[in-house]
Parts: sequence; C-alpha cells; structure tokens
Amino acid sequence: MSTVKLWTEEEVAADPRVKAVFEDIRATRKSDFVNNFWRALANQPALLERTWSSIKEVMVQPGALDPLTKELIYITASTINGCSYCIHSHTAAARAKGMTDQQHAELLAVIGMAAETNALANALQILVDPEFSVK
Amino acid sequence: MSTVKLWTEEEVAADPRVKAVFEDIRATRKSDFVNNFWRALANQPALLERTWSSIKEVMVQPGALDPLTKELIYITASTINGCSYCIHSHTAAARAKGMTDQQHAELLAVIGMAAETNALANALQILVDPEFSVK
Amino acid sequence: MSTVKLWTEEEVAADPRVKAVFEDIRATRKSDFVNNFWRALANQPALLERTWSSIKEVMVQPGALDPLTKELIYITASTINGCSYCIHSHTAAARAKGMTDQQHAELLAVIGMAAETNALANALQILVDPEFSVK
Amino acid sequence: MSTVKLWTEEEVAADPRVKAVFEDIRATRKSDFVNNFWRALANQPALLERTWSSIKEVMVQPGALDPLTKELIYITASTINGCSYCIHSHTAAARAKGMTDQQHAELLAVIGMAAETNALANALQILVDPEFSVK
Amino acid sequence: MSTVKLWTEEEVAADPRVKAVFEDIRATRKSDFVNNFWRALANQPALLERTWSSIKEVMVQPGALDPLTKELIYITASTINGCSYCIHSHTAAARAKGMTDQQHAELLAVIGMAAETNALANALQILVDPEFSVK
Amino acid sequence: MSTVKLWTEEEVAADPRVKAVFEDIRATRKSDFVNNFWRALANQPALLERTWSSIKEVMVQPGALDPLTKELIYITASTINGCSYCIHSHTAAARAKGMTDQQHAELLAVIGMAAETNALANALQILVDPEFSVK
Repeated sequence: MSTVKLWTEEEVAADPRVKAVFEDIRATRKSDFVNNFWRALANQPALLERTWSSIKEVMVQPGALDPLTKELIYITASTINGCSYCIHSHTAAARAKGMTDQQHAELLAVIGMAAETNALANALQILVDPEFSVK
Repeated sequence: MSTVKLWTEEEVAADPRVKAVFEDIRATRKSDFVNNFWRALANQPALLERTWSSIKEVMVQPGALDPLTKELIYITASTINGCSYCIHSHTAAARAKGMTDQQHAELLAVIGMAAETNALANALQILVDPEFSVK
Repeated sequence: MSTVKLWTEEEVAADPRVKAVFEDIRATRKSDFVNNFWRALANQPALLERTWSSIKEVMVQPGALDPLTKELIYITASTINGCSYCIHSHTAAARAKGMTDQQHAELLAVIGMAAETNALANALQILVDPEFSVK
Repeated sequence: MSTVKLWTEEEVAADPRVKAVFEDIRATRKSDFVNNFWRALANQPALLERTWSSIKEVMVQPGALDPLTKELIYITASTINGCSYCIHSHTAAARAKGMTDQQHAELLAVIGMAAETNALANALQILVDPEFSVK
Repeated sequence: MSTVKLWTEEEVAADPRVKAVFEDIRATRKSDFVNNFWRALANQPALLERTWSSIKEVMVQPGALDPLTKELIYITASTINGCSYCIHSHTAAARAKGMTDQQHAELLAVIGMAAETNALANALQILVDPEFSVK
Repeated sequence: MSTVKLWTEEEVAADPRVKAVFEDIRATRKSDFVNNFWRALANQPALLERTWSSIKEVMVQPGALDPLTKELIYITASTINGCSYCIHSHTAAARAKGMTDQQHAELLAVIGMAAETNALANALQILVDPEFSVK
C-alpha cells in the first residue's frame, strides 16, 4: 500500500493539469503505459509537473551521456538509497534500452565493489591525496 | 587524520605481501603514484590483497561496460554513500579516463534527479507495477 | 514477517513490565490501538521502556515545536533512512494531527529538493562558506 | 577542496546565463552574498538554472508550510544524508529565519529519536499495521 | 519479485561453474539449503564465484573475531543500509550460531543508540577531538 | 567548525544541570577527559541528560554482550551512517577496550563484505526465503 492513493485513468482524465502531464509522458515515451510513480505524484500537480519536466530534461533530452548509461547511473543511486520501487522501474527501463545480462552483471559487480570500498574508506577515514585536487 | 597510519614507501618495501600488491598496482596502472586508500589498507595485508584483486577483476579487466562508464557508476555510489575520499578519487579517475565537463555535468544532473525521485518514491511507498516484473 | 514475534494482548497482559508500558501508551494517546512497533519491542522490556519514555519526552511533551512539525521532521528522517514502517506510521500520525494534502505535497517537495541538493553538494564536495560559521 | 572550481565574481560576470541566475538569487534573497553551492553549480549552467528555479518554487514561494518549517525539514534530510555542507548552510538559514536555540534543541531531539526508531524498525522488520493504510 | 530470476536446482545442475559453487556452499555449511541470494547471483557466475570466495574468507575462516560477533556486525551494517533480505538472513544466521534473545535485545539497543548519536553528531558537525588521533 | 558552540570547562561549571552530567561522565569513565560530543550537547541540557543516561544504560551497564563487542557494533553503524566523528571516537574507544589490529582488520573486512552484499541484495531485490521466518 502506498501513503497516497494511485490515480485511475478516470481521475486523471478529470483533472486538466494531471491529464496534460500524462499525455506528454505517453507522447514522449511512445507508450500508453504510465507507471505508478506518476499516479502517486498526481495527488500533487505542481510536484508532478516539475518532476516530469526535470526528468524529461535530464533523462530524455540528448546529451553527452547516452540513455543507457543514464539508466545505469539511476539504478546505482536507487540501489544505494535502497529505493525498491526505483530499482525495479529503472532496471526494467535499462533492459528496455538494451542492457544485456552481461552489462547488468558488470553493473552489479561495480556497485558492489563501490559499496565495499566506500565503507572501508569511511571506516579508515582516509585523507584525500593532494593529487586528486582540482587545480 | 585517518583511524590507521598510512604506510610510507619504506614500510611498504619492508613487507613482502604489501610490496607485491603495491608493485602490481603500479604495473597495472602504469603509474608510480599509489594513493592513500592502499596505504591505509596496507595495515591489513589479507584485506589489501583481496580488495586489490577484486578491483582489478571488476574495474580493470575488459568487459561489457567501458572503463569510463564504470567510473561514473563508482562516483554515483560514492556520492550516495557520502564517501568523501571515494568521490575525490573516482572523480579524478574519471577525468583521467576522459570524462568531459559536459559528461560530469550530466552525471550530476542524473544523480540529483535519482536522489530526488528515490526520496519521493520512498515517501510515497509506491507499489511496484506488475509490468516491471521479471517473467 | 518480522525478525521477532509480535506480542498479542494475552502475552502483554501476562508480563507486568510490558503491560505497564502498553497502559501508558493507551492513556497518553487516548486510544486503545497499540501499533506493531511496540508489539515487537515487547520482546525487549528494557528497550521498550526506554524507547517509550524517550518518545513521550520528545514527541508528546509540549515544547518549542508543535506536534505536527515534529511529525513532518519524523517523516523526513524516516524517508531518507528508507524505513518503510516508519514512513507509514508517521504519515498516518501526521494526518491524525491535521496534516492537509497540500502540506503533505509541500513536505514531499522539500524532501525531494533536499535529497537532490544533498547529492549535488556531496558530489561537488563543496567547501563550507565561512559565513555559515557559528561565531 | 571541491571536485570542481568555485566561480569568482569575475567569472560569473563574464557568463550571461550564470550572471542572470546570480542576479536573481541576490534579488530574491535581498542579500549580496551568494554561497559556494551556486559557485560550484555555475560550472553547469543548465543544472544551475534548473536547481535555482526549483529551489525558488519549493523554498521561497509562499505555501502551506512556513519558511522555517521548510528549513527544519531540510536540515533533517541533510543530517540523515550526512551532507556536511547542507547541514551548515541550512542551519544558518534556519537561524536567519528565526530558529531559536530551544527549537534547534527540539529539532535535534526529534531527528535523534527518528534515527533510533528507524534503525529499530528496520532491524525488527516490523509489519505495517493495516490501520495505517490509505483508504 | 526480484530483478533477476532465481535459479532452480535443475538450472544449477546444468551449469558447471554455478554447480561447483553451490556444492562448496553445501559442503562448507554442512547443509543442503542454499538461500535465494546465491540463486540470484547464479545469473552472474563470475560475481557468484568471487562473492562466495570472499564470504568464505571473511565469515567462515577462523580469525580474531568469533563467528557470532561477525554476524552481529553483519546485522548492524544491513540494518543501517536498510537491506531487508540481509537483515532476515543474518538474523537467522546469528540465531543458528547461538545468539540469545538477550543478546539480540542488546544488539538492537546498541544499534539504536548508535543511529541516534550518529544523527546528533552529524547535525552538530562536531569537531574530532585531537585525543582520538592515531599517533 | 560545529553548528553549535562547544562548552568550555568554565561554562560547564556555571550550569548545574550540565555540570552534574559532566561529573557523572568523569566518574563513570574514571577519566577527566570529556570529549566534544558532550560539549556540543551541553547547549541542550535535556537532550544531554537523556542521551548520557541512555548511553550509560546501553554501553556501560554489564549485559549479554561484552563492552568491546558493543564498540565493534557502534563502529559498524557509524561507518555505514558515514559519521566521521563517531568513527573516530568509537575506534579510539574500541582500542581503549582492547581491540587488536587483527580484530580491527577483521571488523573492516566484515563491514566491507556486508556493504557489498547489502548493495547486491538490494539491486537484485531478492525475495526473503521462508526458511528465515520467525516461527
């Protein structure tokens, strides 16, 4: 159960602000499916609009990182933050964007190593080498 | 200050297990510089050997993800884990592997968006859509 | 499933220390309902007593912050810590103390922004401005 | 040291996009001081613009939560995320918005209790009571 | 549902690398039961092999910390990281290694206190006393 | 710099509530040294009293876990929470209670493994085996 209700298609259709965002999600993603994250945010139209607008700018717009790399980064953050919903949705998104089983395996290996050495470096309180400094 | 002493070159040279790892780090990275992380782990030779061996397998060995992508994943995990040392060392490593300012900017934008939507999805306790299920 | 058993009313009634805490919870909250958190802690009477005593001092006793503000703070910590149980129980508590949908929407917006800028500031390892210093 | 350079006034003045954001920050806050967070983000004008625009919408625009309450929420998230910079900047901001020592003391007490019971609830893997469900 | 499929006995038996690890898990633990963690990792044989080899070295091999103490440490890390699966599996492992209810109660009390004072120390940004320095 | 002032001996001596706690800390620990954590909490006498009272009950009072094991648990939580101050103070405390270098090395190895497998289990969203259930 979520802490807010998830909006049905009927409720979405009855609210112009929410309807406009859902239509843009569908047009942008070229798919009729709108996942629960947006159905929960629909309770807060201003937050829904701002979040979708940012996601479009960051994740959809072409840039210097390709779409699959962005999904791998998203899975990583979601994993360390322990966001179960986000891990599921972005692992599915990465697969939809071509992530192979071998890439998934290596992603997990890197995340695991990073988590391990993050913990070690924190426990050891290691001093930052001056060589890593931005000149 | 760290919670353990950082080994000097003299101390490294005097311990055959530590010396062997440091030589392999230098040979693998084709650089004489060995950063403080390894100088702290030197206090624990078994942990030093296993950690370096894993890092080599995961980060150095060629695979399905290119070396720069792995560094972006590493920066992401380190940022969410709040590991100051790791953020510095892997941002420097990513730059050394060719990360441009534009790629760094987009990396930060994706990490930021992920952190925001992770928090929202957690606060809303959103149910995982059955569409995201592994068949 | 929890990692310990949840105490039933019969078990609570049979243990004087646990019974006394449950009676105080009911009297303090003016409600017969005692949620699972306390039924799990009942396995550890000393921890149950100390935790309830602290919660009463911090959350129930009048002070400089009003009870709803304290619940918003509690939801925020629980969200960033990813504590599913706590998010549910304190969102319900905040609603019981008068949190409106609009306040919930703004709370989520602030938590989301904080999570995003926390990640950005960590990734950038920003130096603390001397202006923020306590004189 | 940060992982990017912090922009000086001269550099800001020379870049029209960055200059426009800095002028809006100064006008909005009615203060000439622009803290390091924005000087670091200046390296990434698109991220700078989007972040400032969101902060203005969420933190500055009047709404259902008063400005001080929003700062208390921000401090809470920053504390649990361990963002040293954000803890400093938002504690200073809360004081500037009128937070008393007594309110600070109670904020800390609530954050501490939440962190403790979050850990207990996670360790006990407590089942969410059906009473907390959104109807 | 997991993000990868969990391998059945038939699938394990058909893959020599995976089969060898599962046989070693069974022989080492002197039990026929192999839990889902390993059935998920089976999708990534190199990661499965390296993870099991490390777990054996760290958790099974005799050393300066007894096996139960190691499980208490593991539960602590898993709790703070909010890893539901790990909390369940290592609480069960600790019980199998002799953890009493009283020890579990004290473990929880220490984890809770640590989480509380960690949050307080972070919120207060306390300076490290020179007395804690490694000489 | 901390977000509150650290109390000097003169300030402590002038406040009877704070003075009483400091005297009890010194008597309990049989040492004149009172570390900065308590000097920061002194700004909030009620929080100071409650925190010290809880620490005494949990960490000092004899129980089912020995004092060194409790410190190892405390270091683990502090490391995963990224609390720099707490890592330093509890690593020093563990050493004062007899932690050997070998024990420290093994502690770090367990924390690192736990962090790695926590991340893997989260990324894989592994289902809890029914075998781990509390009957």
